[in-house]
Amino acid sequence: MNVTSIQQQLLEQASAFIRQCYAELGKSEPDIRQRLDEISSQVQQHGHYTHTAEELTHGAKLAWRNSNRCIGRLFWDNLSVLDARHVETTDAMAETIWQHIDAATNGGKIRPFITVFPASNGHTAHSPRIWNHQLIRYAGYESNDGTIIGDPASVSFTRLCQELGWQGAGTSHDILPLVLSIGSSEKKWYAIPKELALEVPLAHPDFPTFEELGLRWYAVPFVSDMLLEIGGIRYTAAPFNGWYMGTEIGARNLADKDRYNKLPEVARVMGLDTSSNASLWKDKALVELNVAVLHSYKIHGVTIVDHHTAAQQFMRFERNERESSRDVTGRWSWLVPPLSPATTHIFHQRYDDRVVSPQFMYQNNS
Amino acid sequence: MNVTSIQQQLLEQASAFIRQCYAELGKSEPDIRQRLDEISSQVQQHGHYTHTAEELTHGAKLAWRNSNRCIGRLFWDNLSVLDARHVETTDAMAETIWQHIDAATNGGKIRPFITVFPASNGHTAHSPRIWNHQLIRYAGYESNDGTIIGDPASVSFTRLCQELGWQGAGTSHDILPLVLSIGSSEKKWYAIPKELALEVPLAHPDFPTFEELGLRWYAVPFVSDMLLEIGGIRYTAAPFNGWYMGTEIGARNLADKDRYNKLPEVARVMGLDTSSNASLWKDKALVELNVAVLHSYKIHGVTIVDHHTAAQQFMRFERNERESSRDVTGRWSWLVPPLSPATTHIFHQRYDDRVVSPQFMYQNNS
Repeated sequence: MNVTSIQQQLLEQASAFIRQCYAELGKSEPDIRQRLDEISSQVQQHGHYTHTAEELTHGAKLAWRNSNRCIGRLFWDNLSVLDARHVETTDAMAETIWQHIDAATNGGKIRPFITVFPASNGHTAHSPRIWNHQLIRYAGYESNDGTIIGDPASVSFTRLCQELGWQGAGTSHDILPLVLSIGSSEKKWYAIPKELALEVPLAHPDFPTFEELGLRWYAVPFVSDMLLEIGGIRYTAAPFNGWYMGTEIGARNLADKDRYNKLPEVARVMGLDTSSNASLWKDKALVELNVAVLHSYKIHGVTIVDHHTAAQQFMRFERNERESSRDVTGRWSWLVPPLSPATTHIFHQRYDDRVVSPQFMYQNNS
Repeated sequence: MNVTSIQQQLLEQASAFIRQCYAELGKSEPDIRQRLDEISSQVQQHGHYTHTAEELTHGAKLAWRNSNRCIGRLFWDNLSVLDARHVETTDAMAETIWQHIDAATNGGKIRPFITVFPASNGHTAHSPRIWNHQLIRYAGYESNDGTIIGDPASVSFTRLCQELGWQGAGTSHDILPLVLSIGSSEKKWYAIPKELALEVPLAHPDFPTFEELGLRWYAVPFVSDMLLEIGGIRYTAAPFNGWYMGTEIGARNLADKDRYNKLPEVARVMGLDTSSNASLWKDKALVELNVAVLHSYKIHGVTIVDHHTAAQQFMRFERNERESSRDVTGRWSWLVPPLSPATTHIFHQRYDDRVVSPQFMYQNNS
């Protein structure tokens, strides 16, 4: 593709975005035409264009609204957007991320935030990157015999951190450092200040010995490795957060066999007979692990939503979108909760998994 | 399409089937060529061809093996095939079906069976049809105020039965009559002999008052409205059965809001607080309802499989197929169980939902 056809494609993406964005913001057709003229001359001069703060904010919200895998989209319009497009160094990136974590965690009353670092503008040489899957996540240490301490999902990233010079304490809940780069610069690691990473120790309302399992999880899921695409402009570092749906922790992170795999231990605390599949001990332990997660976050004042309430909220989102004459896209396999899925309306519906821009995209991770 | 191109298509389908079938049965290339010559002259003379008993048997097994929605395919080679291609009247169809129900139910030690009635041979005027979704199923009566007694999934079929002159007792567990037709003949109903329809009253090992809910389900799922396609030949009446996976009853038929919707009653028996989603009362009631299903079928000596064991069996099926150099096709959304899906390996895999012949197909239901 020559430069002109790349520019042409960018202009088409920009035009589609500006028209939608400005229509939703109630702007006039002359405003749209004037803005598209500006963008056109920017693109012809520089090969890219710069979003206004308003466009960036609304574009990021639309990317959330278009996230086919997300059940929490009812709140798309409540996203706070931190404009960090001026940031030029990894040190400044880290500082900005501490502010994001602090503002979003908000002492437990979690607020959805996104921080947008400079766009790549087609020059990967200048693209800022966050190499963590989530800003806060536990390390996973694999020993020579294949046993893993910590989160098995973090094993390869933990190894990278160690190669960069980071040393973890070696517990099952070591918070990994932030790993940042800009363009082709060296990756640099930054220890996350202890006071920023809010965590919740897990207890169960009916099984006092549950606490002895020493389970815990961090308060806020900050997804940090996805690319935010708005009107053809690609933001390679745009970490965002909502709050947890309980099953993400209780029915996946702590339960999956290739994650913390805690169902056998939970069953032991509950005194279940684990000798036969048909006793449904896994199902019983899974429910009570999820009860513990919801209960513990609640008593520690940390925002969380159960999957039934989340599904009801998603139903309201679907209704809102219909009333606004917009199609809801979605990926069924991600939207159905991993606990009692058929008790939610989502299980009984079909969703169109079409990709709509603005969007969050996976990007090359190495 | 003219007749010749229809014949051409049929010959291609026949050839693909015969080659696969005969190869799997260890027959020689000359056998295959001779059989294809026979089929070719049959098709040119009559517009269709007739499967040998061996082809019918292996074809029906392959249709099961190719059923993308079915988790129970490990046992595909244990299917017993009842050849009922000589049957010419609905009376004789009903008699044959009683034999199928009896032999498959086998006093509770369920055996997978399929009965194959005459093929449609392209003449829908002669196609035998079974209008029930399953041979044994409960009626659903909708009253004027919209309340439903029995199974809401059966409301429209129940109305059809009533229009044909059948009268149900009006309980929530009336077994519907069989409704049969051949070609364009009138639909005729046949009451299922009481002694044939084995049922299981549900009790819970830990909650004695569970029994007071009066829940029950029939022993065997006989799917009766699908079309069996083998090598281009279409069998419009080919009822088949396996045994239940517990969640089909406990996490769908009795639990779904638009089916028997029993979770609130189960929660009451368990003394759960149903005032808040976050107590996960639905999830707790769902697990215990499924415990009751598995427990009750077991103590009544009726074959059933829990979803964990079924997933392990499916894993063996996948391994067997790999070892036989065959691709496994599947539909993820049907294969994941509706209870604790992420505790099975299926949840963490992808499946190719490609349609492969021989196959079971949906067909026009009115």
